Amino acid sequence: MLVNGKPADTISVADRGLSYGDGVFRTLRIQQGSPFCWQRQYAKLCHDCAALLISCPGEDILLHELKLLTGTESGVAKIIVTRGIGARGYAPSAQANATRIVSFHSAPVYEETCYVDGITPHLCDLKISRQPRLAGIKHLNRLENVIAAGECQAAGAVEGLLEDEEGFVISGTRSNLFAVIGGRLLTPDLSASGVAGVQRDRVFSWAEQNGIQCAATRLKMGDLLQADEIFLVNSVFGLWPVARLQGKDFSQRKIALAIQSWLNDAQN
Amino acid sequence: MLVNGKPADTISVADRGLSYGDGVFRTLRIQQGSPFCWQRQYAKLCHDCAALLISCPGEDILLHELKLLTGTESGVAKIIVTRGIGARGYAPSAQANATRIVSFHSAPVYEETCYVDGITPHLCDLKISRQPRLAGIKHLNRLENVIAAGECQAAGAVEGLLEDEEGFVISGTRSNLFAVIGGRLLTPDLSASGVAGVQRDRVFSWAEQNGIQCAATRLKMGDLLQADEIFLVNSVFGLWPVARLQGKDFSQRKIALAIQSWLNDAQN
Repeated sequence: MLVNGKPADTISVADRGLSYGDGVFRTLRIQQGSPFCWQRQYAKLCHDCAALLISCPGEDILLHELKLLTGTESGVAKIIVTRGIGARGYAPSAQANATRIVSFHSAPVYEETCYVDGITPHLCDLKISRQPRLAGIKHLNRLENVIAAGECQAAGAVEGLLEDEEGFVISGTRSNLFAVIGGRLLTPDLSASGVAGVQRDRVFSWAEQNGIQCAATRLKMGDLLQADEIFLVNSVFGLWPVARLQGKDFSQRKIALAIQSWLNDAQN
Repeated sequence: MLVNGKPADTISVADRGLSYGDGVFRTLRIQQGSPFCWQRQYAKLCHDCAALLISCPGEDILLHELKLLTGTESGVAKIIVTRGIGARGYAPSAQANATRIVSFHSAPVYEETCYVDGITPHLCDLKISRQPRLAGIKHLNRLENVIAAGECQAAGAVEGLLEDEEGFVISGTRSNLFAVIGGRLLTPDLSASGVAGVQRDRVFSWAEQNGIQCAATRLKMGDLLQADEIFLVNSVFGLWPVARLQGKDFSQRKIALAIQSWLNDAQN
């Protein structure tokens, strides 16, 4: 693990990442030493830092540090960028130097059935909050995801779905959702909640390349239950079809499996 | 500073307090070595830990550690309790041992005018989100407060007011709000947003002791502009009257100053 470029496994207690969750992060696959979809990951990191007015580490520095940690191995890297060390008090200091933490982990292993047969997500009791100023950003304020993931764990489910207070479906607890409805790909509007992940963007790209309409819109559970296919994506597990939701079985997989394969192989 | 009882100024990068803001905190005044309103502070810490299913450190341990740091000095102590070190992934591990961090700081010095003449809070652009599962808890997911405090800083205001998306006033950026309306003390309902602080509870106690009705209710800016007095409280600065809000001057201070004095002197 590297903290600001130096081997370390600790950070200052005064870091605002700890005090307030004042920072952002990325989790990405490393394939034989190469960060997968790096351009997209780095662009998101820059975007999210800019949204919080945190200075983003340079691309060369991060690539160098990733290489130092990964060599030619495969696994999962995590990059955290916080606003840095600060005095007590919420107001950000203009002088703070961002803290960057780069770590490398073994890749989690998921059962083949998740990819082939699909999963049955738990519908979370927790309703995700609306906050347009933070929506889309992969920031460090993730207690809602922690609570939701705890619910899934208790329910024995590998992933769960999150709705907002008004009943609009937003995402999985750690993934973005798509539905095939009337030949179009639809994904929840994330202008007020959720994280707009790299794999979500890549599904839009796949759709464009394949002449299939793809749009972000407001979706309720009733809309999903009308879908021909539903699937979840993230940068670590790739794509999991949804096999069953609220007692309804989804047997079609055609578009999901085509996208699954493309997400695994394409480099952009 | 003490981390799990040992002198240290760092924590593990794998601490969930950093990864997800998965923890809670308290900030309290220390008067000549005595933690002010300790029973209330510790009760809140226990309540907030329980709400997140984090194991709360024992009272004796915390009092011992505070004493080690403060001796007979005065200042401000901060206690952070996180869910502890965890593997990558949102789901909390049942085995995690909570991390406790106790630190001692010099007390901030505020201008006398804030206490006597009152302040003019900035009305924040940021609308605070609704999340009943986290409302009231002083958890480490504080990006909304960071953004709001940044707004106040830019506006040159010593504190700001936060409304939710529906226009209900919730609190200051680091304080709770009260208004004297029709001879009653009213404070925002915090069932969906905000932090229910120790000083807020103490104002309820003062009201009870003084035979004045005090209630939590839904308040809009229009209600506040009808108030005879408005004031803000927190455990560090005590009580600041509001002198001016949205162009309206508030000249009465009678109840605010009575409570201000009681909050400073009473030990419960």
